[in-house]
Amino acid sequence: MRALQLTDPGVLEIREVPVPEIGPSDLLIRVGAAGICHSDLHLLHFPVKMREEPLTLGHEIAGTIEAVGSEVDGRHAGERGIIYLCWSCGVCRECVSGNENVCMAAGRTAMPPCPGLGPDGGMAEYVRVPARSFVPIGDLDFQQAAPMADAALTSYHAIRGAMEHLRPGSTAVVIGIGGLGHVAVQILRAVSATRVVAVDVGAAQLDLAKRCGAEIALESGPATSRQILDLTEGRGADAVFDFVGIDATARMSVESVAPNGTYRMVGLGGGVPGVTAEPAGGPGWPWGASVRKSYGGTRSDLIDSIALARSGRLTVEVDPFDLADARTALDRLEAGQIRGRAVLLP
Amino acid sequence: MRALQLTDPGVLEIREVPVPEIGPSDLLIRVGAAGICHSDLHLLHFPVKMREEPLTLGHEIAGTIEAVGSEVDGRHAGERGIIYLCWSCGVCRECVSGNENVCMAAGRTAMPPCPGLGPDGGMAEYVRVPARSFVPIGDLDFQQAAPMADAALTSYHAIRGAMEHLRPGSTAVVIGIGGLGHVAVQILRAVSATRVVAVDVGAAQLDLAKRCGAEIALESGPATSRQILDLTEGRGADAVFDFVGIDATARMSVESVAPNGTYRMVGLGGGVPGVTAEPAGGPGWPWGASVRKSYGGTRSDLIDSIALARSGRLTVEVDPFDLADARTALDRLEAGQIRGRAVLLP
Amino acid sequence: MRALQLTDPGVLEIREVPVPEIGPSDLLIRVGAAGICHSDLHLLHFPVKMREEPLTLGHEIAGTIEAVGSEVDGRHAGERGIIYLCWSCGVCRECVSGNENVCMAAGRTAMPPCPGLGPDGGMAEYVRVPARSFVPIGDLDFQQAAPMADAALTSYHAIRGAMEHLRPGSTAVVIGIGGLGHVAVQILRAVSATRVVAVDVGAAQLDLAKRCGAEIALESGPATSRQILDLTEGRGADAVFDFVGIDATARMSVESVAPNGTYRMVGLGGGVPGVTAEPAGGPGWPWGASVRKSYGGTRSDLIDSIALARSGRLTVEVDPFDLADARTALDRLEAGQIRGRAVLLP
Amino acid sequence: MRALQLTDPGVLEIREVPVPEIGPSDLLIRVGAAGICHSDLHLLHFPVKMREEPLTLGHEIAGTIEAVGSEVDGRHAGERGIIYLCWSCGVCRECVSGNENVCMAAGRTAMPPCPGLGPDGGMAEYVRVPARSFVPIGDLDFQQAAPMADAALTSYHAIRGAMEHLRPGSTAVVIGIGGLGHVAVQILRAVSATRVVAVDVGAAQLDLAKRCGAEIALESGPATSRQILDLTEGRGADAVFDFVGIDATARMSVESVAPNGTYRMVGLGGGVPGVTAEPAGGPGWPWGASVRKSYGGTRSDLIDSIALARSGRLTVEVDPFDLADARTALDRLEAGQIRGRAVLLP
Repeated sequence: MRALQLTDPGVLEIREVPVPEIGPSDLLIRVGAAGICHSDLHLLHFPVKMREEPLTLGHEIAGTIEAVGSEVDGRHAGERGIIYLCWSCGVCRECVSGNENVCMAAGRTAMPPCPGLGPDGGMAEYVRVPARSFVPIGDLDFQQAAPMADAALTSYHAIRGAMEHLRPGSTAVVIGIGGLGHVAVQILRAVSATRVVAVDVGAAQLDLAKRCGAEIALESGPATSRQILDLTEGRGADAVFDFVGIDATARMSVESVAPNGTYRMVGLGGGVPGVTAEPAGGPGWPWGASVRKSYGGTRSDLIDSIALARSGRLTVEVDPFDLADARTALDRLEAGQIRGRAVLLP
Repeated sequence: MRALQLTDPGVLEIREVPVPEIGPSDLLIRVGAAGICHSDLHLLHFPVKMREEPLTLGHEIAGTIEAVGSEVDGRHAGERGIIYLCWSCGVCRECVSGNENVCMAAGRTAMPPCPGLGPDGGMAEYVRVPARSFVPIGDLDFQQAAPMADAALTSYHAIRGAMEHLRPGSTAVVIGIGGLGHVAVQILRAVSATRVVAVDVGAAQLDLAKRCGAEIALESGPATSRQILDLTEGRGADAVFDFVGIDATARMSVESVAPNGTYRMVGLGGGVPGVTAEPAGGPGWPWGASVRKSYGGTRSDLIDSIALARSGRLTVEVDPFDLADARTALDRLEAGQIRGRAVLLP
Repeated sequence: MRALQLTDPGVLEIREVPVPEIGPSDLLIRVGAAGICHSDLHLLHFPVKMREEPLTLGHEIAGTIEAVGSEVDGRHAGERGIIYLCWSCGVCRECVSGNENVCMAAGRTAMPPCPGLGPDGGMAEYVRVPARSFVPIGDLDFQQAAPMADAALTSYHAIRGAMEHLRPGSTAVVIGIGGLGHVAVQILRAVSATRVVAVDVGAAQLDLAKRCGAEIALESGPATSRQILDLTEGRGADAVFDFVGIDATARMSVESVAPNGTYRMVGLGGGVPGVTAEPAGGPGWPWGASVRKSYGGTRSDLIDSIALARSGRLTVEVDPFDLADARTALDRLEAGQIRGRAVLLP
Repeated sequence: MRALQLTDPGVLEIREVPVPEIGPSDLLIRVGAAGICHSDLHLLHFPVKMREEPLTLGHEIAGTIEAVGSEVDGRHAGERGIIYLCWSCGVCRECVSGNENVCMAAGRTAMPPCPGLGPDGGMAEYVRVPARSFVPIGDLDFQQAAPMADAALTSYHAIRGAMEHLRPGSTAVVIGIGGLGHVAVQILRAVSATRVVAVDVGAAQLDLAKRCGAEIALESGPATSRQILDLTEGRGADAVFDFVGIDATARMSVESVAPNGTYRMVGLGGGVPGVTAEPAGGPGWPWGASVRKSYGGTRSDLIDSIALARSGRLTVEVDPFDLADARTALDRLEAGQIRGRAVLLP
């Protein structure tokens, strides 16, 4: 079968490899679509080899069950689904509480094994996955389903954890209307009555945000946090979701979050928000505000995201590419030329 | 009557002033005890005048109702109580949700009027207060009651907001075993089954922490976060309460909080925790962890704190001084010579 | 001024009475609209006199501030608003926690004074209210605003307390699409992504439910709970809101709620759900399910409800009557001829 | 090996049976102790055969891993642990949310397979269990550990779901100080600062409750609910946990729960609380109160319970019997002669 593999730092190849063999607790998935994520770019540019043998990329995987391991109950060939990307221990205190994304077996780093990062991923015709990671999607289109595995999961998780801040009359800011941000706007509209303010540098992204349901769209700039304060009688936004995470957006988030509000740091651009243990005053961090570095999501978050998509409340803007054109897709993503989410079709 | 007043920056005097007159919605309180807080030191050293006329200090006020305004229902002379320190609007969205400590009338700064800061405070024989601020204490001793108004309130609020992290089997770290910290240790023991780890630079403070119920007491130093990781199988503490807030403790908090854990910044020593929007790794901020700059507490937090004290679950280590010796008390607090909480007796 | 007064059991009169005088903490409200509630019918038919002097009815009051008491801060003549119907103590543990609808001053009965029930209500040209009860509505139409005070408040409160059950993919049942039910359907759509199933005996009501956003509308009957089970793969609904509360709907609620689901009893038709402490099995009460007799709502619930209406997410179906035609309106309500909410215009 | 088996309705025998064989995902456990539960009496008296072949009883199982299935990761022979009693699907929406006790694969009945009920249980020398059900106990004594699997789990689950009602100053009532109740009193003391009121018919049980930390012990009778109201200024208890569940205790629970309070129905004596959809008043169900039929608990509840026991906060009153004396133990339980929990030692 064909697989998109990282063979050396910076080197991607479509290679012919054997169809994976599965163990008693595994499934073999015939891939229907595989989403491309910014973290795939990180992997591509990572200066050292991730593992000795070539690594098949891809952690946003939708497809059909082709074969079922001998010990697997309740699954059968032909079922359509997507793959939950945290392949966690399933028995630690966090896993059994439903927080598999911070599995204790992964220690302080809290990053459980993930397809396309350690084990082979889904940018291939077939992929081997643990049966527990399979989540049914009914008749949801594969191109729509694949981005649920990370773009929707991560957005939904960040929002669900902030629900207490999203009562009617509240204001939520979404910074960065890309693959995750445009999904976040739709989720906020679907699960709350908050007023959504979208912030981005590009007019096309702001248009997309409006189509996704944002009430207000602001061009990002030095005046943005001031504009947000003006929209909220000087108080600030009840929740700020930053999908960019550079210095400018981190500062904007701190300056525009309300007292007792929350700022969810999702984009990992290395920004420093400059939170300090000082009395309030000046442009600083207001009393009672919190910041959380959100990571991935739980398996129930994924089930919820799929429910949103299946009920028509969430539609991902998809840019499909043939698996053979993966490099083009990655280059476009890096150049900022992908609106929404790029998806590979094997 | 006698009152301890700030007459100029750095200048404190016991002055003879008229007993305050009260309006229809006020109470006149005969002060039984008034606690001294670190913020009183801040006020003393504040380089500009807080207000034109001399300001009576004191926001931890316990006493007896001497007179009742004509429009006040349900209160009568002779009742014993303490004064809730946020004199908020009572009608904004936050106030009616029980969050008077972030009253919207105070704007983004979110600091409602507070006795001893704008209006005259309780380091005097009598003080005028709005009737709504009065909270009954039954037969609780005034010296015990006064520190409830801030030391217990602030500690309790920080802890209550973190309850979801304090399940059995969890670990909570309390940094700084002073006026607030030794109260926080007792509250944690009373309201949860978490394991309490106390951290301080001084042996006497660590002894106090042990007497207050801390299971483990660690001398603060460069190895502290490593020790906390060792106590938690490398994972970190589920909750860290920093009552110091300098650079060293902020760093310690970041380095020792677990994934999905929480770090509550209570002490305001100007420390910079160095939270960044970067992928996890190294000593950094773990996935899913949150930091919140906790401020004061709600009126229901105060009621709860009093309930803890009345049931014998919370006893403040009190160092009483005559009102005339206020300057001595403040000097000792500044020199780090007060164990627990200093209280003035008019 | 004119006022609709209950003079004797069953006897309603439009009477000419003096404009109320207000105290220092009160407001005088010029009534813009006053909603009619089923509980007004209860009062009308109550066999004993509610109080010695005639009682002006009306607890859903929208209007304009005409005069402001001498001790009231932050309010001024000309402001438009509605009146929160629980005139609670404001200082007990429940009130300061934001739960004024179960004020402790009202004892175990937990029914604080309410305009139109003890004090005079708003079916008059003017009404005296405590200043704390006033909630601004901006430019919201009075006819829309008045039903917020009870119809929306009560629905919103019942739903907000059940939010944990309303994740995407869940199913919520609304039984009874009258004055409260058609509001509840809209609120569910606005604040969650749950699937809404409306149940009523009348086709017109089911049409209204559909226009309000219900995905599924079921004619109420012996097969209804079976249909709900069929819609949920035999599991039952995650939340059931019963706005009728007779035996038939109580049984339906028990039979159609899922394990770990919740059933909120809002309508008070005297129904007996038949919950028993027995192992699950048969038609009975499933494991983990809860039932709660919801009452009114909090002041923050009212603020939230107004925010929903002002943002266009909630529109009450209003049937306006002149104050002089109050009796006609009440008769029609009793006959089931009011779609949505009847409102009196003084 | 020897096993205590139900061979016919009402007929229990110690039989010699083969040591179970395990599959690739299973563990073989050498039983250290097996607790006896009231539900074992139900099984014994159940009028029809549970299954064709004899059934080994026992769902409170502590022991040592003897053998590990070929597909099991992270477990090894010699580990000590207890067995989580809900053998759920592990992949449905409830399971992945951490609510395995209401697994959706079990349909509306929501009772997943349980050892000793369908599969063979732990009243034997060895038992086969799915590897996922194993929870490590460290060096906790087997006699203490076994009752964690149900007595502590069920109590803890009921209490954890009611934590919002258990703030300082609150009152919690525990009705029935038997195997579960005496554990519940200790858990309440460990995880909250609520005041615990124990209710039972027997003086010995009330003594036990006091030793377990109850502040007040009331002999059960017609005046009990009145006494509880008197203890709470007429308001009622914030939470009532009924571990008996007969008519008398169900009525007592309704009559003594506060407005907005909660009543958790744990004991399943067939009692009818008589909750109705009527306006409050009389002895009835107060506004805002909820009742929930609590069932078992989650896997994380079990982990928490073990943490309580290991930290010394929870000690079960154990009455040990040799496996051969099982019938005697069951007879004593039926006769009400067991204080705390009976445990069989194979």
